[in-house]
Amino acid sequence: MLSHIDMGNRKVVKIVEKEFIGLAHGSGGKEMVDLINSFSFSHRGTWKNVDNDAATIDIGEQKKLVFTTDSFIVHPIFFPGGDIGHLAVSGTINDLAVMGAKPLGLSLSFIIEEGFSFHDLQTIVHSINLLSTKTKIPIVTGDTKVMEKGKLDQIIINTSGVGIVSDEELFTKELQVGDAILLSGGLGEHAVALLSKRFDYETSIITDSKPVIDEINAVKKYIKIAKDPTRGGIAATLNEICMRNKKGILLYDKDIPAKQEVRTVVEMLGINLYELACEGRFICFTEKKHAKKVESILKTFNNDAAIIGEVTQGNSVIIQSILGKRMLPNPTGRIVPRIC
Amino acid sequence: MLSHIDMGNRKVVKIVEKEFIGLAHGSGGKEMVDLINSFSFSHRGTWKNVDNDAATIDIGEQKKLVFTTDSFIVHPIFFPGGDIGHLAVSGTINDLAVMGAKPLGLSLSFIIEEGFSFHDLQTIVHSINLLSTKTKIPIVTGDTKVMEKGKLDQIIINTSGVGIVSDEELFTKELQVGDAILLSGGLGEHAVALLSKRFDYETSIITDSKPVIDEINAVKKYIKIAKDPTRGGIAATLNEICMRNKKGILLYDKDIPAKQEVRTVVEMLGINLYELACEGRFICFTEKKHAKKVESILKTFNNDAAIIGEVTQGNSVIIQSILGKRMLPNPTGRIVPRIC
Repeated sequence: MLSHIDMGNRKVVKIVEKEFIGLAHGSGGKEMVDLINSFSFSHRGTWKNVDNDAATIDIGEQKKLVFTTDSFIVHPIFFPGGDIGHLAVSGTINDLAVMGAKPLGLSLSFIIEEGFSFHDLQTIVHSINLLSTKTKIPIVTGDTKVMEKGKLDQIIINTSGVGIVSDEELFTKELQVGDAILLSGGLGEHAVALLSKRFDYETSIITDSKPVIDEINAVKKYIKIAKDPTRGGIAATLNEICMRNKKGILLYDKDIPAKQEVRTVVEMLGINLYELACEGRFICFTEKKHAKKVESILKTFNNDAAIIGEVTQGNSVIIQSILGKRMLPNPTGRIVPRIC
Repeated sequence: MLSHIDMGNRKVVKIVEKEFIGLAHGSGGKEMVDLINSFSFSHRGTWKNVDNDAATIDIGEQKKLVFTTDSFIVHPIFFPGGDIGHLAVSGTINDLAVMGAKPLGLSLSFIIEEGFSFHDLQTIVHSINLLSTKTKIPIVTGDTKVMEKGKLDQIIINTSGVGIVSDEELFTKELQVGDAILLSGGLGEHAVALLSKRFDYETSIITDSKPVIDEINAVKKYIKIAKDPTRGGIAATLNEICMRNKKGILLYDKDIPAKQEVRTVVEMLGINLYELACEGRFICFTEKKHAKKVESILKTFNNDAAIIGEVTQGNSVIIQSILGKRMLPNPTGRIVPRIC
């Protein structure tokens, strides 16, 4: 019986996760990948990239439709620099953008707890409206459900998105050994902003949550593959890329950007910077010869943007630091609580 | 303070609903329409039908992309003849089908309570997989989130969908006075199946939940407008159509199909048959001269299919019964508990 289990006991939790869904199944790491693989949907039609951030299908004239979905359960729903609505719209735009697509429109589905503040809902809607207008990406279809008080913690938002990409611009190009890996800004800002609200400590850090479409468009012609490091952070993202592309990755520890305040907080809390979800950052792969150029363009958007590694032989993510080399494994277990 | 409010007192509830979200805001009736109208998204790009079941956008060659979303919070999650997964996939396919579209693919987003049974999840996934294979409509992109135990009641599913329709086949044709209204099967079966599980009474009725795409395809060339009467039932659906098309509707009470057992149960429970969500039925409008033909085709799928009314001047839904004429208003308040 679940109610008799001490959730602090890792060994017991492991047994539970076989019979019951655990938090780790939603954390973006190994357990989630295993769970999703167990679904084994047998009929995929002519869709491709069904295991990627967004799936694609040919719609003629050398164009593809791109389709993605994401649900947001972040707690607290308002946090320094953003809110659950801003996060949802940014996240879905980014899932389209990292495929190279031009977003066409988003759906918006609210599931709300009875008794939720009407004012808070309007604040969230306003924030979505502003971002939709600013990015010129419309909210075009929606749904609203209300659950009885106590049956849901406040509010959940699902946003799905559709976009169009030309075959030529689709970011599914083959990686070569020696290709450079870039990160568009510092890690951990969203997590630290969230955790500051949860643990009630003072910080100047605000969420990084934002659409990355302008940055991506600015370096589009150089990008082979792009990906936003959300749940599981760059650890999950880079391991996924290694697996899919049958290549290895070497990261330069000293070059991976993060603000000093972020580093202090994550060290204090004993959490892994590389496993933290960003909501306004992307990783991209480019030929080595374009790396400096791409870096300088990305720096005009965020001065912390940097070349952080290179593609190698092999199939794992290795970090090179002054202490030597070590593996960066796909995260397992419960990473951090509900930050997206 | 919400905690001090007696939710049985309708007058107090009314005040609450101004400041807090109430169950009525998710019931598909007047309060939900008012809430959604208050969102007033300002940027819609070149999308059309943004207030319909699915939005549309031109993608060239006289074709439109159709896009829809729906979240499912049904309780219980397993019920006679179906489950939440079957319901979700059927619902989203139907939202595309009632626009005249050929569904291309669906997204699938699970939000799961920690401790949810792995076996139950696999049962739901299996049911989705079967339906996807049977209809040849693939699940192409997804998301899985897990919320802490007690923060969510079991499981929520969001399914969004994309489809394609030719300009010519889009079901947004103009209604004329005299057009016939047809219903593809009996009302209330989904609700009665659900309620039997909740209230633990015996019934032979099973949910009507299913994709209606085959029926729609069979009568496609005759359809001017179609709609699936989900939340708020035919009362909400027909009032919405009146409003959007600036026409009235006359319903023939005696011709509206419902199984005797359904009628007995709804009478016993004192609920309105016309306000109950169906999940495998559709209403369609056709020229009067095709009405009998459409009815006979629909009867080959479900013998309860019937011509149930006609388009009139005016702007309201009127029911003609042996007792005379009465209005069928848009439902208000909490209709029935979470049946979709």
